[in-house]
Amino acid sequence: MKKMAVLLSGCGVFDGSEIHEAVLTLLALAKAGVSYQCFAPDIAQMHVINHAAGAVAEGETRNVLVESARIARGEIKATTELDISEFDGLVIPGGFGAAKNLCDFAVNGAEMQIPPLVTEFIGQFIKANKVVGFICISPIMIPLLYGAGAQGTIGTDADTAAAFKAMGGDHQAVTVDEIVVDAARKVVSTPAYMLAGNIVEVHNGIEKLVAKVVELA
Amino acid sequence: MKKMAVLLSGCGVFDGSEIHEAVLTLLALAKAGVSYQCFAPDIAQMHVINHAAGAVAEGETRNVLVESARIARGEIKATTELDISEFDGLVIPGGFGAAKNLCDFAVNGAEMQIPPLVTEFIGQFIKANKVVGFICISPIMIPLLYGAGAQGTIGTDADTAAAFKAMGGDHQAVTVDEIVVDAARKVVSTPAYMLAGNIVEVHNGIEKLVAKVVELA
Repeated sequence: MKKMAVLLSGCGVFDGSEIHEAVLTLLALAKAGVSYQCFAPDIAQMHVINHAAGAVAEGETRNVLVESARIARGEIKATTELDISEFDGLVIPGGFGAAKNLCDFAVNGAEMQIPPLVTEFIGQFIKANKVVGFICISPIMIPLLYGAGAQGTIGTDADTAAAFKAMGGDHQAVTVDEIVVDAARKVVSTPAYMLAGNIVEVHNGIEKLVAKVVELA
Repeated sequence: MKKMAVLLSGCGVFDGSEIHEAVLTLLALAKAGVSYQCFAPDIAQMHVINHAAGAVAEGETRNVLVESARIARGEIKATTELDISEFDGLVIPGGFGAAKNLCDFAVNGAEMQIPPLVTEFIGQFIKANKVVGFICISPIMIPLLYGAGAQGTIGTDADTAAAFKAMGGDHQAVTVDEIVVDAARKVVSTPAYMLAGNIVEVHNGIEKLVAKVVELA
């Protein structure tokens, strides 16, 4: 049985992993007969957003690993606990957490950086030539991780696509039910809620991405 | 187009709504061509559980409505905002939040009570003879809400089934992919993570429950 890692970035679209995308990733992996293990970096969130009010919860702090554990029903490991030999690939759901906690794109745009803890985790999959699937906004990390010419999609948002290109990536505009495959680098991406109008569209795009990730694993 | 309400109880299996069950409920509703609106009571959670450590986060407080908004991507209303005429039915996912925040079964067992805010919300569906679907542990509220003889399932857990019966309910033991239908009262229930060993089993049970709820709506 193949085994995939899933990298989470908190729990909630505005300050963590997009919950629908994360759950539908786990569902698609399980339906494909693949086992999975969730991981998250043991770091503080950039901030906490009150999702009912749509505003920063001033003075509140939360930990990315601890909040991600909610999606994983407690079955989660810190990124430093990775044994790469156990895994056939990795999937990274979106949500603002991917752009706030896994990198700082939400703040610094094309000047973004990826912290060492995250680079080291994803880098182990890249070094071992294992497939990685990026969902929603998480593909914004592809250019820095894979270097110039790496292909990916964040959907059709002009500013985000421009940033992807400014960092050296080869951006492909696609619709919500499509995926982009960089076969040479074993990188797969899909827009999900960067474009989706409802949860069924997200489900369809992620099922397609996971099928390709499992095929390349 | 039919429209369903979904009653959430926080965000995380140990102190709120079970996230997989909640998301898969929204997916099943959307796939069935039904629109939905999430609701939650604007009250403090019973407590906060650190889901990575599996322990109470001492001194921390969170609000059920605010945390539920994470699952709803911000599109949520307080239970007091319900206009019953807009809705054809209601679905209530499980998770300990259903037994800690929507009622106090987790603390008081068969001596449990349902707070007025929750009774008034669900009661409007019952009074209007609208269908209600209960998932996982949330069916434990059926006896108090519907009175003696009401049928439901919490799976096969002996202690929980005994409490269901002690409160006057007619408990039916079923497998994870089955539902129990009390046609006279328009009540549907399914065990989900009370029995499920994985997310695919949860998905299958909830799809079956939602199909019946939509049929009865």
